[in-house]
Amino acid sequence: MTSNEPNGAAIGSIALVGAGPGDVDLLTLRAVERLRAADVILYDDLAGDALLSFARDDAELIAVGKRAGHPSPKQDELNRLMISYAKLGKRVVRIKAGDPAIFARADEEIGAARAAGVPIEIVPGITTATAAAAFLGTSLTKRVVARRLQMVTGHDIEGTLPSDLDLAALADAGATTCVFMGKATFPALAEKLIAQGLSRDTPTVVVESLGTPATQVIAGTLSGIAAQLAAEKPQGPCMILYGAALAGVGRDGAEPQTQR
Amino acid sequence: MTSNEPNGAAIGSIALVGAGPGDVDLLTLRAVERLRAADVILYDDLAGDALLSFARDDAELIAVGKRAGHPSPKQDELNRLMISYAKLGKRVVRIKAGDPAIFARADEEIGAARAAGVPIEIVPGITTATAAAAFLGTSLTKRVVARRLQMVTGHDIEGTLPSDLDLAALADAGATTCVFMGKATFPALAEKLIAQGLSRDTPTVVVESLGTPATQVIAGTLSGIAAQLAAEKPQGPCMILYGAALAGVGRDGAEPQTQR
Repeated sequence: MTSNEPNGAAIGSIALVGAGPGDVDLLTLRAVERLRAADVILYDDLAGDALLSFARDDAELIAVGKRAGHPSPKQDELNRLMISYAKLGKRVVRIKAGDPAIFARADEEIGAARAAGVPIEIVPGITTATAAAAFLGTSLTKRVVARRLQMVTGHDIEGTLPSDLDLAALADAGATTCVFMGKATFPALAEKLIAQGLSRDTPTVVVESLGTPATQVIAGTLSGIAAQLAAEKPQGPCMILYGAALAGVGRDGAEPQTQR
Repeated sequence: MTSNEPNGAAIGSIALVGAGPGDVDLLTLRAVERLRAADVILYDDLAGDALLSFARDDAELIAVGKRAGHPSPKQDELNRLMISYAKLGKRVVRIKAGDPAIFARADEEIGAARAAGVPIEIVPGITTATAAAAFLGTSLTKRVVARRLQMVTGHDIEGTLPSDLDLAALADAGATTCVFMGKATFPALAEKLIAQGLSRDTPTVVVESLGTPATQVIAGTLSGIAAQLAAEKPQGPCMILYGAALAGVGRDGAEPQTQR
């Protein structure tokens, strides 16, 4: 249904493409196909340039993140940009780190596209949470011990710890919790979790700069990791995981392994 | 480090490969590479035969699920099988539906391999939860409205509703919940959630047989879907999603769309 005709008679489309954690080989075949077919690709610094190697030579590549040397455009400007290209008949791909359905504000893009009558598709991606688990060589669920998996974001739109977190759910010792974008606020979160009754010794792992050659793992306890993050913030983006399923993970004898 | 030498002098390896929801094009490039390199592939009816098209002609393909016409082997028999092939120097791939880190019992396979001194790798896959969201064209998180995402399994090892569920967390109106393998027990779960205070009208969606041409969507309310599932069980595997993020999803005007 898409068209490249310059008269713009046919409407194009938007695909929100999950890029996974950043490793090119964790793209899905469908994501590669969409990148190859795209007329216009919007990307930012969370999704590595390497993914752009799949773009056609004549595709228009638009940097919308901080890497472009300018402040990030606002979400509604981005939506208008995607929609205006689609209305010119272009196949537009918006690259999203991880999976578009998880803390990626895809609902705003979907809503804007639908309101404008532009077809929008979501191509799922490997979420950073399970990519981190794979890197660490662990399951996130474990019978009896970790029977619920939950994901939260460590910062709200102002960059502070969200005030409406369900602390009882997050302090459940029988769950595994994945905190997205939480490196700045984790000390405050950990304090609340401990006040709520979660053990200070809960196994906790930070995976920094996943999907890059600079990936670092810090393993410890809830209170220990909180103290470390309070003392010194890692440079790269962090996925923070805590819960009994992480016991022994990222320590001696449980090194990440790769089959090659 | 792997070897095919028949003398078994070199140890092989095991890769738990996430196959995603079943659509071949939702495999990652890494999963395809591991399938191509495998000497032995263990698969079952949850991971479609189509994935086996990537196997080498001389790869040994072992059906370990019910499709083989026999009862499924027990987990520990499977572990022994994988380990014995790896000890013969083989590169063994175990295909896992969805992502190996989420309700796939990978912890047992990882533990068995490590205990036997066999290198084991996890290749993450698209989890059925986000594949369902992509199919439905929705985000699973939504600022303020759905600020926590959680995943639980609807049946324990005996096939009944797990007795240790954290019902308060599951009845949180500000979360999106994904219930894996829950079609048989969802009526019982819904009753508990409503008793816990979750609204009977909470938007609820069932996605049946995701990743196949026979995918079906049933959208409704928590109590309505529970009644439907109590009256008639869908044939195929189901992912059940509930929470405010699902409002309007799977109904008229919000049809799943694909960019082609």
